[in-house]
Amino acid sequence: MIKKLSVLVCSASFAALPLSAQDAKPEYLSPPEIVAKAKAEEWVAIAPSDLLVMDLAPDAKGKARRVVIQLMPAPFSQGWVGNIRKLAAAKWWDGTSINRVQDNYVVQWGDATEKKALPEGLMTVPESAYVAATELKLNMDRLDAFLPSFHESFPEFAKQFPETRNASQSEMSKRFRKTLKSDLYADANMMVEGWPVAFDLKGSHWPTHCYGMVGVGRNLSPDTGTGAELYAVIGHAPRHLDRNIALVGRVIEGIEHLSSLPRGTGPLGFYEKEEERVQISSMRLGNEITDQPTFEYLSTDSVSFAAYADARANRRDPFFITPAGGADICNIPVPVRRKAK
Amino acid sequence: MIKKLSVLVCSASFAALPLSAQDAKPEYLSPPEIVAKAKAEEWVAIAPSDLLVMDLAPDAKGKARRVVIQLMPAPFSQGWVGNIRKLAAAKWWDGTSINRVQDNYVVQWGDATEKKALPEGLMTVPESAYVAATELKLNMDRLDAFLPSFHESFPEFAKQFPETRNASQSEMSKRFRKTLKSDLYADANMMVEGWPVAFDLKGSHWPTHCYGMVGVGRNLSPDTGTGAELYAVIGHAPRHLDRNIALVGRVIEGIEHLSSLPRGTGPLGFYEKEEERVQISSMRLGNEITDQPTFEYLSTDSVSFAAYADARANRRDPFFITPAGGADICNIPVPVRRKAK
Repeated sequence: MIKKLSVLVCSASFAALPLSAQDAKPEYLSPPEIVAKAKAEEWVAIAPSDLLVMDLAPDAKGKARRVVIQLMPAPFSQGWVGNIRKLAAAKWWDGTSINRVQDNYVVQWGDATEKKALPEGLMTVPESAYVAATELKLNMDRLDAFLPSFHESFPEFAKQFPETRNASQSEMSKRFRKTLKSDLYADANMMVEGWPVAFDLKGSHWPTHCYGMVGVGRNLSPDTGTGAELYAVIGHAPRHLDRNIALVGRVIEGIEHLSSLPRGTGPLGFYEKEEERVQISSMRLGNEITDQPTFEYLSTDSVSFAAYADARANRRDPFFITPAGGADICNIPVPVRRKAK
Repeated sequence: MIKKLSVLVCSASFAALPLSAQDAKPEYLSPPEIVAKAKAEEWVAIAPSDLLVMDLAPDAKGKARRVVIQLMPAPFSQGWVGNIRKLAAAKWWDGTSINRVQDNYVVQWGDATEKKALPEGLMTVPESAYVAATELKLNMDRLDAFLPSFHESFPEFAKQFPETRNASQSEMSKRFRKTLKSDLYADANMMVEGWPVAFDLKGSHWPTHCYGMVGVGRNLSPDTGTGAELYAVIGHAPRHLDRNIALVGRVIEGIEHLSSLPRGTGPLGFYEKEEERVQISSMRLGNEITDQPTFEYLSTDSVSFAAYADARANRRDPFFITPAGGADICNIPVPVRRKAK
């Protein structure tokens, strides 16, 4: 069964394939297998009011296209997120369109005419809000302070996940420290309440531009954008945009309706003809949608997430020969799934 | 003109847009502007015999779809590359298909039936060939040894690129060292003859899984694949595959014909129905194609490449407020273009 499935599963949203009888029993679980084994209480429900649901016009075959975005929680970008809530309440995006698809970069949507009046009461957010202050003043010599949940939970972790049986607590700690310190665009990073976040030594932190993240288009500084013009990342993490544009959320379902769109042939991937644009039928907060499924994410403070992140950085499942020994934060996507009814 | 073009250009293949009169004259060049200014002699032609040209069946609108791949040079993966040359000569891929498109991961093609006989004389390549030995035994304290061209060329660099006018040679050297040492999946990395390459301290080096790279599908170890089953990366760099699968090249034109394909709905993104598969009309070496355009890449030893890489890691062009101060090797794509006739 596994024959010719060649490159192994990467996305946590796919269940691992059963191994056929002649294959050796795996010694170690793959990242998706670890996620599948996580306990129900390790998952955190996402409030429907924190979802932004975008329905595109049906595709050429008449199939519905729904994209579900989870909005960014405090302390990040709340000025723009507030604007987005107002824009959704005003049904402002209905009838607007996707206007730009640049390969290995972004899909961007909003009002192509640039003339549609914005609802009243939108906030002008200052550039200082691209980052948030944190009380966690980073001390690079005391990174273990960031890992309390790991240290507390190590015995249970080792019991649950036999792949740690050959690793001492100090070895595991060393691995986590390496991952935490390893950010080429910041002094450090860590997952904070389900989101990838970068830190500097001055007491600031900010969300990171990973695949699927949603941000706010803007003009040249000091403009910061309103939130009416949005984009989603569909390529290698453009981390150079961190701290330069506001991130307001991430796509948690239906990104294929954006990432598989034809690339625009104009400068920056803009569509050159009106008929190339993809119409947005509606965009609403999740609590305004009938029968909106509930989503949940794997708590990034959970033992299972720690095991998952470690496995992403150190692949030991059967396909792999040489574990990398590290991973960048955008290569450890936070597992999100529909909550079982 | 630049209004609403929001997220700035990322790809080196787009020319910078002209600024309108009211915009301030940029103090610093953007990465694409630096590439556009590179001298003719800084570009290196790619031999047509090192190209693998894949023609897909025309799209729904009858438009041709050609994907051009540059094959990996020695010392990397030459066993598989040799097999690929034989497969192309035997027209083995003609009539096969793209069978898998997994979002944020890979597009994979080959014989969906798994029954098509392979040409004779293909080599079985050992796993040891996933890496190559290098005489450059890495000494982390002497990384400057990797940067001779930069040190030799700094005066010319500073003259050509006014953005360095505020940076001393030692500052520039520090920036390069930071970039070079910054690899979360290896001890170090650098560009080698136009390719992104990672190094370990033991004297090995290997190409890295960046966006657009092409690799060889395989079964479980010790299988290493023949080269008949290929994939291209269409998402965030899956660097955990480095040293675990052979990389044999990269897409240099037409990747949008792969990355914008509908995602497969089966496990691992395989297409579930035969009619979803995209037929491969032909796949040939570039020297067997009539009117094959010549491509060239910006020499990664050139002064312009050094300036480009530095600008990718430290964006100072008008859109940016806070330069990142670093970049991962997959966020510094090597510029490739058609050679002017």
